[in-house]
Amino acid sequence: MSTELLTTAVDCFWLFFGGVLVFFMQTGFTMVEAGFTRSKNTGNIIMKNIVDFMFGSIIYWFIGYGLMYGEGNGFIGIPFGDMFMNGMAGAENMDYTALFFQTVFCATSATIVSGAMAERTNFKAYCIYSAAISLFIYPIAGRWVWGGGWLSELGFHDFAGSAIVHMLGGTLSFVGAAILGPRIGKYTKDGKVNVIPGHNILIGALGVLILWVGWFGFNPASTGGLSDGGVQVAAKVFITTNLAACAAAITTMFFTWIRYGKPDVSMTLNGVLGGLVAITAPCDLVTPFASIIIGVVGAILMCLAIPFIDTKLKVDDPVGAISVHGICGLWGTIAVGLFASDTSAGAELLGLFYGGGLKALGVQALGAVSLIAWAAIIGSILFVVLKKAGLLRAKPQEEIEGLDSTEHGLASAYPDFVVSYNEKRSM
Amino acid sequence: MSTELLTTAVDCFWLFFGGVLVFFMQTGFTMVEAGFTRSKNTGNIIMKNIVDFMFGSIIYWFIGYGLMYGEGNGFIGIPFGDMFMNGMAGAENMDYTALFFQTVFCATSATIVSGAMAERTNFKAYCIYSAAISLFIYPIAGRWVWGGGWLSELGFHDFAGSAIVHMLGGTLSFVGAAILGPRIGKYTKDGKVNVIPGHNILIGALGVLILWVGWFGFNPASTGGLSDGGVQVAAKVFITTNLAACAAAITTMFFTWIRYGKPDVSMTLNGVLGGLVAITAPCDLVTPFASIIIGVVGAILMCLAIPFIDTKLKVDDPVGAISVHGICGLWGTIAVGLFASDTSAGAELLGLFYGGGLKALGVQALGAVSLIAWAAIIGSILFVVLKKAGLLRAKPQEEIEGLDSTEHGLASAYPDFVVSYNEKRSM
Amino acid sequence: MSTELLTTAVDCFWLFFGGVLVFFMQTGFTMVEAGFTRSKNTGNIIMKNIVDFMFGSIIYWFIGYGLMYGEGNGFIGIPFGDMFMNGMAGAENMDYTALFFQTVFCATSATIVSGAMAERTNFKAYCIYSAAISLFIYPIAGRWVWGGGWLSELGFHDFAGSAIVHMLGGTLSFVGAAILGPRIGKYTKDGKVNVIPGHNILIGALGVLILWVGWFGFNPASTGGLSDGGVQVAAKVFITTNLAACAAAITTMFFTWIRYGKPDVSMTLNGVLGGLVAITAPCDLVTPFASIIIGVVGAILMCLAIPFIDTKLKVDDPVGAISVHGICGLWGTIAVGLFASDTSAGAELLGLFYGGGLKALGVQALGAVSLIAWAAIIGSILFVVLKKAGLLRAKPQEEIEGLDSTEHGLASAYPDFVVSYNEKRSM
Repeated sequence: MSTELLTTAVDCFWLFFGGVLVFFMQTGFTMVEAGFTRSKNTGNIIMKNIVDFMFGSIIYWFIGYGLMYGEGNGFIGIPFGDMFMNGMAGAENMDYTALFFQTVFCATSATIVSGAMAERTNFKAYCIYSAAISLFIYPIAGRWVWGGGWLSELGFHDFAGSAIVHMLGGTLSFVGAAILGPRIGKYTKDGKVNVIPGHNILIGALGVLILWVGWFGFNPASTGGLSDGGVQVAAKVFITTNLAACAAAITTMFFTWIRYGKPDVSMTLNGVLGGLVAITAPCDLVTPFASIIIGVVGAILMCLAIPFIDTKLKVDDPVGAISVHGICGLWGTIAVGLFASDTSAGAELLGLFYGGGLKALGVQALGAVSLIAWAAIIGSILFVVLKKAGLLRAKPQEEIEGLDSTEHGLASAYPDFVVSYNEKRSM
Repeated sequence: MSTELLTTAVDCFWLFFGGVLVFFMQTGFTMVEAGFTRSKNTGNIIMKNIVDFMFGSIIYWFIGYGLMYGEGNGFIGIPFGDMFMNGMAGAENMDYTALFFQTVFCATSATIVSGAMAERTNFKAYCIYSAAISLFIYPIAGRWVWGGGWLSELGFHDFAGSAIVHMLGGTLSFVGAAILGPRIGKYTKDGKVNVIPGHNILIGALGVLILWVGWFGFNPASTGGLSDGGVQVAAKVFITTNLAACAAAITTMFFTWIRYGKPDVSMTLNGVLGGLVAITAPCDLVTPFASIIIGVVGAILMCLAIPFIDTKLKVDDPVGAISVHGICGLWGTIAVGLFASDTSAGAELLGLFYGGGLKALGVQALGAVSLIAWAAIIGSILFVVLKKAGLLRAKPQEEIEGLDSTEHGLASAYPDFVVSYNEKRSM
Repeated sequence: MSTELLTTAVDCFWLFFGGVLVFFMQTGFTMVEAGFTRSKNTGNIIMKNIVDFMFGSIIYWFIGYGLMYGEGNGFIGIPFGDMFMNGMAGAENMDYTALFFQTVFCATSATIVSGAMAERTNFKAYCIYSAAISLFIYPIAGRWVWGGGWLSELGFHDFAGSAIVHMLGGTLSFVGAAILGPRIGKYTKDGKVNVIPGHNILIGALGVLILWVGWFGFNPASTGGLSDGGVQVAAKVFITTNLAACAAAITTMFFTWIRYGKPDVSMTLNGVLGGLVAITAPCDLVTPFASIIIGVVGAILMCLAIPFIDTKLKVDDPVGAISVHGICGLWGTIAVGLFASDTSAGAELLGLFYGGGLKALGVQALGAVSLIAWAAIIGSILFVVLKKAGLLRAKPQEEIEGLDSTEHGLASAYPDFVVSYNEKRSM
């Protein structure tokens, strides 16, 4: 085997490795969302997480991938034509490799939304909007940044998807949860905000830890290969990714300890995720020191955003997805323009704090605004149409009884156990 | 390091990667089987899943691997002689690599049976028949197909084990569950068929998702390496494997939605597995389109087989292993003869729908019949002997009390929780 | 890309792969410790396992790695100077790769202690001693063996950390648990020893299985690369690691079956871990046969040590960490001096049973004694100071109520479920 062929094999292997880890994040999201919600909706959470991946994989292969990477212009690619009909028939191995790697990223974007809209969304509506994300919302945004589109031409940098995957998912989460309305019992008429605890924090922690594992595919493997300096970037990305996650978790722990008197478990778990989301865009261009700062700031923003969204905006987000993915995703996108300091990989970006002036920051801000606008506008149209059609929300009695029973005919996810007080208290 | 040596290193690494993922499937099977059965048998399920791997690893290393890959003839290899006593003493690294990769496959075959025979099998009997699978039932069948035996010489194709691993395990499951008889309370004297729900569908879902992750080692790494075109095949196998799983899950969801009025959670989870089993034999030779068809058909067959086996044949299979592994494994084996269309990897197979006539289909059918006959005959002898010896089944009072307590002295797998109604209802 | 550069890329990839698997062990430890303790402390267990990793990663990067691998002498390296301040600023990719791989090992050492001291340690004390392990206890010991220190110069062999990671963690566990004292209700005044069962053996099993998966990174990837014969060693290590784990599990199962009348589930699970710990030091130098013996002996030692520590020494170790990591770690360290038989990888060790005389055995014993002394002395000082300061132990009413509520304000890890009898019985 020639060195050239072997290099290609290793590069593909690297993407297989990363892709499998990113796919494992589906397991993580399922566990996080199920653990942090009530046991009467557990089967429904499982179904939604399977649905977004099963629809997403087929739709993205059939259309989305072409919209994102096919021939076309700076805003949209041509589906079928290039990628699907011809390209895949005689596809080279790198095409299939890239398709697999991109599919699992697309599914991540789709799955984020299910957390914010958990416990009260109609299952049919979920199938529709989940499909829409994989069909065009994510692919067109992806086109702009990763598919050679207009934002990438301006120099917008989003290494592994703080913006494309997480901020996009977080924006859709915000719009969706706001239009959907809060869970029954979350906000009382006298202005009280109730905490509705999840039913299994250990499973939630399992999910967060699995997501952390998966992120070591998500970020490092976004080099696209190990050749041509890819391995140097990947090695650094392991360090910056991990340090940001750890710094964010520490910050969150102390934030809650100081503010609420005790180190909070589920907030600290969310802190891990917030740090991971924030470092995802800049992980290849920043120093380990900067990654710690990015994690710390991301965690503080998340710690402020969660109660703000919950008690001021009164948008009910059962798992904190808007803050973790939306706010920290936005912060990570902006952070590129502040902390980027590495030009070795060929990037010409330098952040504000490293002598690069406001140019990179401006481009990052423009990209962030554009992507948020895209997701917010399309998401609003989608969710409002579903709402007007009477499809978006489960009926009150269904929500109270639990979606497992009403949507799936599942008497209980835990039939051997006596289930009680959270049920009664929160409804 | 020479390119040649580096190529060998990468090929071995690829098998290490795949082997670890396949080993992870042991975790998946444990969670699926525990989640889909009652909490009074959870510790017993754990033990059985540890036992099959711990006995399997040692027995397969000691004898099974030699039977499968040692010198010998088209039906059986010589244990000890070639592989174990001499081969391993001065073993080349590829030998150890192959042994590891094959061991985790062998253990997968053994672990399938524990699901179908769950909640009522005597633990000693389990130890015996689990060991027998790794000792000779799987290795001899494997000899025929993967060890250069008579079926491989006829051109029988089973890329990653729809037949050798899954159909074999499913056949043994059927024979075992039929001879063992149903759980107490499953079928009442007035002909009623009771559903005995599992105790934790979230853990069941965790298991299915982990199995899906593991399948990305099971199928792609069955290329045996990334050199000599292996990486091209592997890349396609990621896509065909994933599309089949997704298509099968979608099909199952809509099948249950249409037939029973609601999209069923545990059936959809089984649909994922059915699709994965079905694509395992043909994944390297079919187009992405064909993989979707194979997933759809596999799911429909599984959806029909589960109630047929449960209510018509009255064979009690707590986790649906016979349908998922047996029926979908058979379908995948046959599907090679229908959909094989890729001759680039050197295979000379062309399926019926791709101009290959009936030859490939005939060979696949012959192989399927032979392997089913082998597993059914040997399995019947094994289980009947165990039954006649009074060893096969737990005593009724043990089964009612639960195997955790009676077999393992474990008062409860969940001592902090009040355990109740499924216990009462199903017993 | 030149073959040389590609070789470096593959070697780094191998460490990335291994590092991710070792990181996954954090998930395993969290599940094991949570499953094998009571539900009133589940959130606390989660926090402790996050804390050790988040503090450990940052401290080890900042100081510990330099102490272990920086310039210096045979006892200690210089932090900051070489590795952190200069080295990392212009770090080569192998530096970052090694840092990542070493960080996850360091965190493993720290996390072991939390199991032995579970359910009664003050959270602040945990944060302090967990940080101390990553700050200097582990790095200085690591210096001696893996950082080119005095033990490595004597020829002490600890391939992947039976001594450095596990025996060290086990020794700290013993000292810590002894100084901390038993859980309330564990030992009654009339000399009775109560069993306090964990709350979820299925989650415990999940943890053990995940640890097993992670060990396939821990041991094989300790080759440091696949070039220069690394792949041959790695291949053998997969086999020896797996056979030892299986042999230990079988031994433990039969040991409990014979001794207590029934095959015990949680002991068998611990048997897996004991076998893995024992083979970790000698896995590269022993034959598959020897690995089985090492597993068998390790399991017997563990089976004897657990009741001895529990009922004779009356040191309360909720998860058996002292026996699993300490005793089996010691055994594995010594086993190198008995069974080492492979000189192909350049090691000049030969064990007593393979004609090497007492030299290797003597060095291994010296190393074991030195490392135990180091951990025991430093650990004793640390824990006694914390105890004298009144920081080490939670107050009795906190312990009885549960640390979730008192330390973290978490009403329940499982608010939907009625929690009952283990609570009442054991306190």
